[in-house]
Amino acid sequence: MSTTALDRSLVQRLVRNALSARLGNGHAPKLVVNVSARHCHVTPADLERLFGKGHQLTPYKWLYQDGFFAAEELVTIIGPRHRMIPNLRILGPCRDHSQVELAFTDAIMLGLDVPVRRSGDHRDSPGCYLLGPAGMIELPRGVIRHERHVHMGPSDADHYGVKNGDRLNLRIKSSCSAMFEDLLCRVAPATKLEVHLDTDEGNACDLAHATHYELFK
Amino acid sequence: MSTTALDRSLVQRLVRNALSARLGNGHAPKLVVNVSARHCHVTPADLERLFGKGHQLTPYKWLYQDGFFAAEELVTIIGPRHRMIPNLRILGPCRDHSQVELAFTDAIMLGLDVPVRRSGDHRDSPGCYLLGPAGMIELPRGVIRHERHVHMGPSDADHYGVKNGDRLNLRIKSSCSAMFEDLLCRVAPATKLEVHLDTDEGNACDLAHATHYELFK
Repeated sequence: MSTTALDRSLVQRLVRNALSARLGNGHAPKLVVNVSARHCHVTPADLERLFGKGHQLTPYKWLYQDGFFAAEELVTIIGPRHRMIPNLRILGPCRDHSQVELAFTDAIMLGLDVPVRRSGDHRDSPGCYLLGPAGMIELPRGVIRHERHVHMGPSDADHYGVKNGDRLNLRIKSSCSAMFEDLLCRVAPATKLEVHLDTDEGNACDLAHATHYELFK
Repeated sequence: MSTTALDRSLVQRLVRNALSARLGNGHAPKLVVNVSARHCHVTPADLERLFGKGHQLTPYKWLYQDGFFAAEELVTIIGPRHRMIPNLRILGPCRDHSQVELAFTDAIMLGLDVPVRRSGDHRDSPGCYLLGPAGMIELPRGVIRHERHVHMGPSDADHYGVKNGDRLNLRIKSSCSAMFEDLLCRVAPATKLEVHLDTDEGNACDLAHATHYELFK
C-alpha cells in the first residue's frame, strides 16, 4: 500500500517545476551557457616563474563576465603518466592561488585522479608540473574538475528564488538531450547570468547544437 | 489564462514516471551501465588490409554481451587536422561495415565533425585514415558518435514497457548527477540489459563513482 502512495510534496514539486519551466520563458533573464575548456589560473609569483620577472598577462580574448579574459600566455601541463597537454591557456587576471581546471577526460589522459571542487577548494587534489618559456613550476595541489555552476547577479537570484550557494538544475535540449543537476549558484553584484560547464558536459549534451536551455530548481 | 493551465497529460506523465521509477526498483532486472571508449569495427577485407592476408582478430577481453570482445588488434586513426589517436581498439567479431565510434571530445581533437548515429547509419558522416601494421586504409565515411543506447532482451523490454526502437531516460546519481534522455532501446533475444554511454557522457556524470542508476520512460 505504502509503495503505491506518491508523496504529495513530490507531486507538488513536479508540477511546480513543469509550471515554472513553462511560465518562466517569457520573463526569464537571458540565460547563457558556456563551456570552460581546460585552463589554469596563476598567482603573480607563479606567472613570473613561468614567463620571467615582471611579466604581466596579455588579454587574448575577453570573456563574457566583465573584466575576465583568456590570456595570450600558454603553458604545458605534465602529469604522472609522463604525458602532457600543451597550450593550456591561462585565464586572467592573476589570482591569489594557482589552480588547474580539467575535464575528467583530460585528467584521465594525464593520469590524474581529480576531485570535483569549487574554485579555491584544493582538498585532496593532486598537483602537476607546469612548464612555461622561462621555467617549470610544481604545483603541490590544485588540479581540480571545477564543479558545474551558474554565475548570476542579485536580480537573477531573485528570479530563480535562490541565494548564493544554492543549487539549480539545467536541462539542455539537443540531439543528445540531458539534464545536469545541482549547479552551484554563485551570486555576486555586477555579474551576468551564465552557466559554466566543462568540455565533458558540453560534449555529452552536444551543447554546440542545443535548441533550448532551461534552468530550474 | 491558458499560460497557467498545466495540461493533464503532462501531470499524468510526470506522476507516472515518478511512480514507475519508485516502484520499479524492487522488481527491476539488473541494470549495467558501461562506457564504450572510442573504438572501431572492421570488415574482414579491411582487417586484411590493415593486418595482412588471412589475419583474424584475437580476443583480448570479453565484453559484457556474450560473443563480443575487445581485440588485441589496435590501429591509429588519422584525421584532417594532421592529428592522430594511436591505440584505437578494434571490437570483434568482424562486421559487414567498417565504422569508427568516437566521443565528441575525440572527434573535435581530430578535426572531425561527426554526427550522432546508430550503428551502421553513416549518413553525412566523415571518413578518416586507419593505419595498421600491414597498411593504411581510407574509410570514405563511417566515423560517428554512436548514440546512447540500451541493449535488452525481450523480458527487459516487457519490464520497461518498450519495444525495439523506443526511447528511455537514464538518471545517474553521483557527485555530478545527470539525466541522459532518449536512449535508444535495442531489443534482441539472448541480450543482457546494458546501457552504453560514451566517454564524454560517462565522464560528465562521473559514472565511475555513481551510487545509483535509474532507467525510466
